[in-house]
Amino acid sequence: MARKIGILGGTGPEGTGLAYHWAREGEHIVIGSRDAKRAEDTASQLRARIGSAAQIEGADNAGIVAQCEIVVLTVPFSGQATLLKQLKNFWKPGTIVIDTTVPLAATVGGSPTRMLGVWQGSAAEQTKELLPPGVSMAAAFHNLGAELLAGEAPVECDVLVCSDDEKAKQTAMELAGKIPGARGLNGGKLENARIVESLTALLIGLNIRYKVHGAGIRFTGLPAK
Amino acid sequence: MARKIGILGGTGPEGTGLAYHWAREGEHIVIGSRDAKRAEDTASQLRARIGSAAQIEGADNAGIVAQCEIVVLTVPFSGQATLLKQLKNFWKPGTIVIDTTVPLAATVGGSPTRMLGVWQGSAAEQTKELLPPGVSMAAAFHNLGAELLAGEAPVECDVLVCSDDEKAKQTAMELAGKIPGARGLNGGKLENARIVESLTALLIGLNIRYKVHGAGIRFTGLPAK
Repeated sequence: MARKIGILGGTGPEGTGLAYHWAREGEHIVIGSRDAKRAEDTASQLRARIGSAAQIEGADNAGIVAQCEIVVLTVPFSGQATLLKQLKNFWKPGTIVIDTTVPLAATVGGSPTRMLGVWQGSAAEQTKELLPPGVSMAAAFHNLGAELLAGEAPVECDVLVCSDDEKAKQTAMELAGKIPGARGLNGGKLENARIVESLTALLIGLNIRYKVHGAGIRFTGLPAK
Repeated sequence: MARKIGILGGTGPEGTGLAYHWAREGEHIVIGSRDAKRAEDTASQLRARIGSAAQIEGADNAGIVAQCEIVVLTVPFSGQATLLKQLKNFWKPGTIVIDTTVPLAATVGGSPTRMLGVWQGSAAEQTKELLPPGVSMAAAFHNLGAELLAGEAPVECDVLVCSDDEKAKQTAMELAGKIPGARGLNGGKLENARIVESLTALLIGLNIRYKVHGAGIRFTGLPAK
C-alpha cells in the first residue's frame, strides 16, 4: 500500500498548495481539518483542479494521524500546541511529522515581519516537545509562501530541512524535490529551525518593501549535485 | 575632498576583503587597528595587491573615527562593545557607521553555527545603543563571508541592509553595489538585523555540511532593477 501524506490544516492556503503539488506528483494526500466535511470540500476542489486520477481525500485531524505515514503540520502557530495536545494519544510510532509552522508576531496581533520568542527556541522545537518519542520529525517548507505554492510556475526557492532524525530529514528533502523549482537543502539540526522560521518574517518584509508577493530564497556556492 | 571609509578591525579577513573591493572601485580607505603600525602594514599589502593608485592608508581606531565620514565595524563581537565604549567621545556628528558584526556563539567558545542572544536583539542594536545620537547607522555585509570577499570572482550574494536611518541605509546599499556580484537589498528596520545576523550562522552550517567555503544567499521574486 502506498504511503499517505496527511496535511493538518490542509484547508488553509499553505496546506492546499503543498497538497496540490504533491498530489500532482502521484502522492496520496489526505487533507485534514477539525471539520471532516470542510476537509472533504477542499479535497474535491483539488481533485477537480488536478484531474480525477489525483488521490486526495479529506478526514478530521485525528483521522489523519490514525491513517497517514507522513503528517505535515500547516496550522497557524496560534493553534499548533492545542492541536498537538489533542492528538497526543493518537500518534502511531514511526510516523514522520513535518512541521512548517512560523511563529510570526501576527499570531498575537503583532507584525508579520516580526517573530514571537518561543521558549523552546522555535515552533519546531515546541512541536517536538509535544510529540511522543516514537514519532520522527523534521521542520521544513517555512519559506515557501502560500502565494508561491498557489501558482503553476516553478517556485524559485530552496527548502531548508532541519531535523535530528535522518529518516524524517530525508523524507522532507524528497518531498521538497517534488515541488517544481524547489530544492531541498540540509538545514542541519532541528534547533536551526529558529533561523529558518525567522527567514519567513524577513521574506514577508521584502514582499512588503518591494511590493511583490513571492519573494523566495536561494543559497549559492553549494555543490551542483 | 573625497569621503574616507574607515574600517575598524580592518586588519582581519572580513575588513581586508571589504577594503580591497572598495579601494578597487576608487574609494579612499583607512584601515583601522588598535595598533597603527599593523594597520599600515595591511594597507601597504593591499596597495601592493591593487596597484599604486589605490588610496589606502592605516590609522589607529581613534584616528579612524576622527577622520572618516563612513566607519565600518568589522571587529569580532567579543571586542565590539569595549571598542565602542573607548571611542564614545571621538565620534563626529553626521558620521555613518556600518556594522557587520555577527554574535556567533563561537565568541564565547560555542559553535559557529549557533548565535548568542544579545539583550538588545542583535549586535547591531547593541552598537546603536553605544553610539551618540548624531551618528547614523546601518547593519550590513553580515552574509558575505571572508572567503567570498578574498577572491577575485564576483560574489554570488545579496547584502541585506537594515537601518532606521535613510542616509545610512542608502550609503550601505551603494557600498554593497561596489562589490562585484553583490546586490544591496532593503532589509527594513535595524531590528531586522537579528534575522540577518543569524543567517550567517546558517551559512556557516551549510559550508560545513556541504564541504564548501563560500555559501551565499540570493533573494528571488524581487523586481529586476
